[in-house]
Amino acid sequence: MSLVIDVAKNLINRRSVTPEDAGCQEYMKAWLDESGFSHEDMVFEDTTNLWSRRGTDGPLFCFAGHTDVVPSGPEDAWQTPPFVATEKDGYLHGRGAADMKGSLAAMMVATRRFVADYPNHKGSIAYLITSDEEGPFINGTTRVIDTLEARNEKITWCIVGEPSSTTEVGDVVKNGRRGSLTGDLTVKGIQGHVAYPHLARNPVHDAAPALAELSQSHWDNGNDFFPPTSFQISNINAGTGAGNVIPGSCKVCFNFRFSTEVTDQQLIERVTTILDKHNLDYDIDWTFNGQPFLTDSGALVEATQAAISSVTGRETELSTAGGTSDGRFIAPTGAQVVELGPVNATIHKIDECVSMKDLETLTEIYYAMMVRLLA
Amino acid sequence: MSLVIDVAKNLINRRSVTPEDAGCQEYMKAWLDESGFSHEDMVFEDTTNLWSRRGTDGPLFCFAGHTDVVPSGPEDAWQTPPFVATEKDGYLHGRGAADMKGSLAAMMVATRRFVADYPNHKGSIAYLITSDEEGPFINGTTRVIDTLEARNEKITWCIVGEPSSTTEVGDVVKNGRRGSLTGDLTVKGIQGHVAYPHLARNPVHDAAPALAELSQSHWDNGNDFFPPTSFQISNINAGTGAGNVIPGSCKVCFNFRFSTEVTDQQLIERVTTILDKHNLDYDIDWTFNGQPFLTDSGALVEATQAAISSVTGRETELSTAGGTSDGRFIAPTGAQVVELGPVNATIHKIDECVSMKDLETLTEIYYAMMVRLLA
Ligand SMILES: [Zn+2]
Ligand SMILES: [Zn+2]
Repeated sequence: MSLVIDVAKNLINRRSVTPEDAGCQEYMKAWLDESGFSHEDMVFEDTTNLWSRRGTDGPLFCFAGHTDVVPSGPEDAWQTPPFVATEKDGYLHGRGAADMKGSLAAMMVATRRFVADYPNHKGSIAYLITSDEEGPFINGTTRVIDTLEARNEKITWCIVGEPSSTTEVGDVVKNGRRGSLTGDLTVKGIQGHVAYPHLARNPVHDAAPALAELSQSHWDNGNDFFPPTSFQISNINAGTGAGNVIPGSCKVCFNFRFSTEVTDQQLIERVTTILDKHNLDYDIDWTFNGQPFLTDSGALVEATQAAISSVTGRETELSTAGGTSDGRFIAPTGAQVVELGPVNATIHKIDECVSMKDLETLTEIYYAMMVRLLA
Repeated sequence: MSLVIDVAKNLINRRSVTPEDAGCQEYMKAWLDESGFSHEDMVFEDTTNLWSRRGTDGPLFCFAGHTDVVPSGPEDAWQTPPFVATEKDGYLHGRGAADMKGSLAAMMVATRRFVADYPNHKGSIAYLITSDEEGPFINGTTRVIDTLEARNEKITWCIVGEPSSTTEVGDVVKNGRRGSLTGDLTVKGIQGHVAYPHLARNPVHDAAPALAELSQSHWDNGNDFFPPTSFQISNINAGTGAGNVIPGSCKVCFNFRFSTEVTDQQLIERVTTILDKHNLDYDIDWTFNGQPFLTDSGALVEATQAAISSVTGRETELSTAGGTSDGRFIAPTGAQVVELGPVNATIHKIDECVSMKDLETLTEIYYAMMVRLLA
């Protein structure tokens, strides 16, 4: 059996539903031991994190990833048991196969081979692994980064193993992500009976023109790397269920995905201006989920593109689309960050799987990147 | 004990939570027997209705009302047991005391006295009683009216015993009601992830400008008898609860209370025009709860004003404000309709009660009306 598939199976067979690690990191440590890594467990609350490093010099090349997976959903609905890695028609099936135990296996195999081939490589190699990427991401990567920052330990280049590819491995690399900002708005009115509207104040009537203006606003034009900032209302609720009662309040939840052309503070100010202009009586709670980040050029992007081209012959596309990732915690330290992993078609779904050939290819790409940056 | 209070107690002590009649109508029939009424039970589904009439000639003077009451809520929260009529500080306490078993008692006592005093009165006297006024009003007054209409039995003057008064009995009489029309609107979008808005269509964003226009629209100016037509959104709901999902649809429930200056069809057309103008993809279900009706002059209004004035010295106010009532089913037959009953401050609440003195006064007013119209 191929080495990367064997390692991937060992990880998939561990039932590490977020925030459980289920021994994955112990397995990774044992593997990395052979290449001379030293390990630092960083357990915060319910989350198991690992910081492993080989060497003390800079530059510091870091693989980042997570051992936790999302729940399987009903196991009966799967063609193969979700926590028993199973080969089938060229694919490796199981929860986490694509997101992202396959990537971890490719990193591990590439690392062992690179260290064997270049025992005197320059700089250092590190692993930043968490069991809280699929959960609330409070005690995971962000706290490891806090610890590293506190002792001024800086990552130069970071490869996050998130499944970035669309149809073939390496066709898309994420070199940034949009920021995310959530608002929980409560528009306050006065409850009453529809037959006596003069005794009530309808918060839905108050809110509607403001929501219309928010949903029609143009926030920015985006730029070469980011699409325009997007505003979306995800939830709106008002009313008792009864058809003859004017509701006392209206709750609205909305989210911004924003480019590097605006800041979260600017968005908050613009929303507040609109709400105030419409004379709403309201409360609002803001949840800031991460600044946008971008690694638009430099050695890491060049090495990534060159490695993909040399291994697959593909021109890779740099993209900042999609959801958030732990890259948002790493990039603010000044690190160059790219996300490169297998095809994401089945992630978080029933019958998650990854092409076994793609895992071999991904191992080659990771190896080629290490050679370019550290050999 | 006063006769009207005794009759009211006999009704309140019967636990006739809608649509139960709990023997109230049998009690009323026994009482009316003494004055020579003949009875027609009209049971439709779960609803007990009574049509009792004395005489065959016109004009036909009719008392209309309901024996059912709304549920008491937690009985422990009451100062006195809700289904044990209790005198306290000049008030008679119990569920239905004001809405409207007190009115029924006043009608019954007034009728017996009037028939005794004027055995050869002109025209006829009738009772139209239902046990489904507080419920879905499907098998109640509307079906009795259908039966009467089918045999061309016409009510000339109708007094509905709903508690119309505000602070003193007779201070307000309802001589009409606004129409009521409910719309259940579903605005359809395409569900998606907030990170990929180009793959989704947000129904809340689509709906907001249309709802803003609807809530700011001027529907009519009302007239001498009706306030302007009012539009109120009672419920709006969209979203899965998750903050990162664009909802697939948005449900909105709204209600019109409308004057005689517009029709339900005109309102439906205007709403449809606004929804279409905003290019919404939508379904809408309309529920028509009743046309507005008005009895603005004539013998009944004159007799009502004169009777109240002679018994209490009060100038009564004619009003069309407030919710719907069974008058909406009776007025379309061509009947003159007024609603006159006790003070409505405690109806549908814990510790519902009625002034015992007001019930005596109401009996006098009903009697005086019969004298003016039938003696
Ligand atoms: Zn992942
Ligand atoms: Zn009533």
